[in-house]
Amino acid sequence: MMDAELSKTAGTSIKCRAAVARGAGEPLVIEEVIVAPPKTGEVRIKIICTSLCFSDVTYWKLKERWNDKSYFPRILGHEAVGYIVGDNVHDLSEGDTVLPIFLPDCGECADCKSQKSNLCSKFPFLESPVMHRDGTTRFTDMKGESIYHFLNVSSFSEYTVVDIANVTKIDPVLPPNIACLLSCGVSTGVGAACRTANVEAGSTVAIFGLGAIGLAVAEGSRVCGAARIIGIDINPNKYEIGKKFGVTDFLNSATLGDQSTSQVIKEMTDGGADYCFECVGTASLVHEAYASCRKLYSNAGWGKTVVIGVDKPDSQLIFKSAEVLQSGITLQGSAYGGLKPKLDIPVLVQRCLKKELELGKFVTHEVGLEDVNKAFDLLIEGKSLRCVIWMNK
Amino acid sequence: MMDAELSKTAGTSIKCRAAVARGAGEPLVIEEVIVAPPKTGEVRIKIICTSLCFSDVTYWKLKERWNDKSYFPRILGHEAVGYIVGDNVHDLSEGDTVLPIFLPDCGECADCKSQKSNLCSKFPFLESPVMHRDGTTRFTDMKGESIYHFLNVSSFSEYTVVDIANVTKIDPVLPPNIACLLSCGVSTGVGAACRTANVEAGSTVAIFGLGAIGLAVAEGSRVCGAARIIGIDINPNKYEIGKKFGVTDFLNSATLGDQSTSQVIKEMTDGGADYCFECVGTASLVHEAYASCRKLYSNAGWGKTVVIGVDKPDSQLIFKSAEVLQSGITLQGSAYGGLKPKLDIPVLVQRCLKKELELGKFVTHEVGLEDVNKAFDLLIEGKSLRCVIWMNK
Repeated sequence: MMDAELSKTAGTSIKCRAAVARGAGEPLVIEEVIVAPPKTGEVRIKIICTSLCFSDVTYWKLKERWNDKSYFPRILGHEAVGYIVGDNVHDLSEGDTVLPIFLPDCGECADCKSQKSNLCSKFPFLESPVMHRDGTTRFTDMKGESIYHFLNVSSFSEYTVVDIANVTKIDPVLPPNIACLLSCGVSTGVGAACRTANVEAGSTVAIFGLGAIGLAVAEGSRVCGAARIIGIDINPNKYEIGKKFGVTDFLNSATLGDQSTSQVIKEMTDGGADYCFECVGTASLVHEAYASCRKLYSNAGWGKTVVIGVDKPDSQLIFKSAEVLQSGITLQGSAYGGLKPKLDIPVLVQRCLKKELELGKFVTHEVGLEDVNKAFDLLIEGKSLRCVIWMNK
Repeated sequence: MMDAELSKTAGTSIKCRAAVARGAGEPLVIEEVIVAPPKTGEVRIKIICTSLCFSDVTYWKLKERWNDKSYFPRILGHEAVGYIVGDNVHDLSEGDTVLPIFLPDCGECADCKSQKSNLCSKFPFLESPVMHRDGTTRFTDMKGESIYHFLNVSSFSEYTVVDIANVTKIDPVLPPNIACLLSCGVSTGVGAACRTANVEAGSTVAIFGLGAIGLAVAEGSRVCGAARIIGIDINPNKYEIGKKFGVTDFLNSATLGDQSTSQVIKEMTDGGADYCFECVGTASLVHEAYASCRKLYSNAGWGKTVVIGVDKPDSQLIFKSAEVLQSGITLQGSAYGGLKPKLDIPVLVQRCLKKELELGKFVTHEVGLEDVNKAFDLLIEGKSLRCVIWMNK
């Protein structure tokens, strides 16, 4: 089936269904779009399913770009799995199951070759609405108007075109509704625990914000053998949810009265946690996370504060100079969990297949593409962790 | 000789010469002082020699304590080597060659037992002017007035009393004028490179400030195999000095015109250095150091910024939240180079004996205790790196 379909489309434009964001905050419109053939260094992917990540919502709502105009019409979606269809397949083969991943991994630049970084310098991640190499789009609507890309993926379409730097081949055995989760948020959280922080067995972890990313940090910490995983959220329902992901203790930070979260964590842990993760995207919580790392007296501390949440671009982190010097605490950001897509994601896939990582817990809802707006509602209302959107359900 | 001397003094007060700081910025006074016998958990040390560190100058000048009154009269000095004399020797033996070290290492608390920290929580380093355990002093002047201690050491005295948490036994073969350097500044710099940053062979290092600490970072980086060591200072003479310590490139940051230091470093290194060290104690330089770590485009970076310099207590470090998240750069403070005194200093001693670490280069001047004020002048005027003060020269 697949081969016939693939050879049929090679080199030609494909007309298919997509959910198009036509204006900030307006319901997505299911319409037919034209997906041009890939150019050099690109592949075309047939999306199997895609899950909704909060970044989709953030960009969908954006009336004005931070430093630029907003990009509409646009095809959102960036957590997905699909398979390669037959044009310009490069070192990939037709029918290969792949994750399109927002973070480029060219494999050739000094940064991609280095073990120190997962941030490609050949194709810097710039949140660009067009293709890396020629700055144009591959999507056109039925009136001939260009449609912008999103985070190098644009998976709310039956077909999309992605740079090969943004494609990771994976084992096709993993169920698609699990595989797609690894394309962004879940990998970010698991990687932040296992790679950036390198949580070790027996350690104590504090996670600020138990959304999908924070729960993925918990899952990663659980797999790394953390003895104690403290979840912090203002939604008390998160404790029950968190338990499934290894959360052992819960703090409702809205009900602590005069005490700060870090004070309570210090009391609970005899001095502070080994690893603290900020997963909300609020600078003040970065400070609370930093203050929650093990620290006794005026200094005598250790631990690492990992920044995962994305705050507004102009937000600042302010630390006392002496605290940074003397506390022994490390501050580090974690983009995509410090993971190199092509190197590390296949390893996570194997850990899922071995049931070490249990990602099915993240999938709370599944809908067809025609119900994509329902997926938005569920996420915005806090009812879903991950809603998987199937292209052909 | 030694045994007779030791047994003679056990349990009694010792009268000896010391350089006493009687007022902020006033020349030290060589006078006789009474050194009481050590109490439980303490030992008495006969100082062989001591070197002058800039922290001695900083506290000597202090008219007002940051949060308290100034402490005078006081016996300064905290980089020293000596041997144990015979009272309360605990697990140390009379005649053992030891370094009194400002940073406590009780060996028993969770922090001392952990590999994650070098900051003792049983005896937090509080810059206290008295003994840890009973809050009193062991020094008295000839009028019977108490004399304050300094940084748990007070080595500008022929004899001093130190808590056993602050004593590290070392191989007596190492010449005393080299050994004393390991008691503070040189270990701090070498440790910051070899332990905190873990500089690896072939890497690029940038060092802000080529005082003794910065040069010790260079020496540590050289020993670790750094391919390129960029020194930054406003004193152009530091290039020639730096070369002896492995500095391969020099930037006079006072003569860069419109360009910032980080811009020049980025150009020199094709994107930034792997490891950047702030050794001056100026918050704005921490930012320059952070900006000098490898970073291309808006993100795509790696590297570690290590804060060693001590700025004023109320100084702040301000970072853009997005930069911390996306740059891949780690920020970490380094107190005493991340070294555990009792575990790591004997290793550095062995590296000196094997001529891997070449510390003789730091010793630019040597004087007797009676010329201690000359040592101050030399350091303040920038003429010395380390002036060794011999107790009996």
